[in-house]
Amino acid sequence: MTLHFCQDTDLSLERRIPATPAAVWRCWTEPALMKLWFCPKPWRVTEAVVDLRPGGRFFTRMQGPNGEGETCDSNSDGCLLEVEPERRLTFTDALRADYRPNGSGFMTATITMMPDGAGGTLYRAVILHNDAAAREKHEQMGFATGWGLTTDQLAALAETL
Amino acid sequence: MTLHFCQDTDLSLERRIPATPAAVWRCWTEPALMKLWFCPKPWRVTEAVVDLRPGGRFFTRMQGPNGEGETCDSNSDGCLLEVEPERRLTFTDALRADYRPNGSGFMTATITMMPDGAGGTLYRAVILHNDAAAREKHEQMGFATGWGLTTDQLAALAETL
Repeated sequence: MTLHFCQDTDLSLERRIPATPAAVWRCWTEPALMKLWFCPKPWRVTEAVVDLRPGGRFFTRMQGPNGEGETCDSNSDGCLLEVEPERRLTFTDALRADYRPNGSGFMTATITMMPDGAGGTLYRAVILHNDAAAREKHEQMGFATGWGLTTDQLAALAETL
Repeated sequence: MTLHFCQDTDLSLERRIPATPAAVWRCWTEPALMKLWFCPKPWRVTEAVVDLRPGGRFFTRMQGPNGEGETCDSNSDGCLLEVEPERRLTFTDALRADYRPNGSGFMTATITMMPDGAGGTLYRAVILHNDAAAREKHEQMGFATGWGLTTDQLAALAETL
């Protein structure tokens, strides 16, 4: 399936990671591993739920170094849409578990991991938004820095697996 | 997969239809057929798009007998989530084509059709909402009457196929 990227409304990040797609996949789908990389330090993930099927819950709770968090903004509760092991993972915050609407929806993210050379991965994240305003908001929330830092953490962890 | 129905937030409709699941499936997925039953007469569907795959667009434009319509409220633009031929169809208005969020989301509907006796179908629609308030709003919009009437039209059409 092609990615339907639109420059006006969407954001993306691409990275070559020196670890296999299988290792990157594990980091994205095993809660114990997600806790190690999924938010920029010194924030940390205190809870992660990955019900690995289309329609399954995809949830992370994040907490700051001084106990910040426990608010809606620092949690991310979503629904998995596409689950192609070691290849492609799509989730959205517009739905909760079992495709139930949230009443709002900010983004849908597709993560792809393609074999790249000897044991490496071409890693890509594409984030779809409703419109240009939502894209702009995400950019101002620090998308490039936030996703950049966590992708560094993801790559470092994947290399150890 | 089980249906995650919750009495407080969801709505449902069940009907025995004297036509095969295959015929009912065609009515739900072929645009030319959808136009014949999908909204209560004398309103009519003037355009239908069914891109029959998970992530595909599911769109209907409706028009009243005096030209009412052509507004957002009378159109339904959504995204297919589950496509199991002649068995199960799930779509939501929280996403548009290719899982792009709409910025809002009112409902997710799952239609199931199970073989029932000789050439019949046990037809069920389950509508998930975000919360009890959204369910209440849908009920007051005339869910029972609207879906009841269109299901009559669906059953009558399916019998002719």
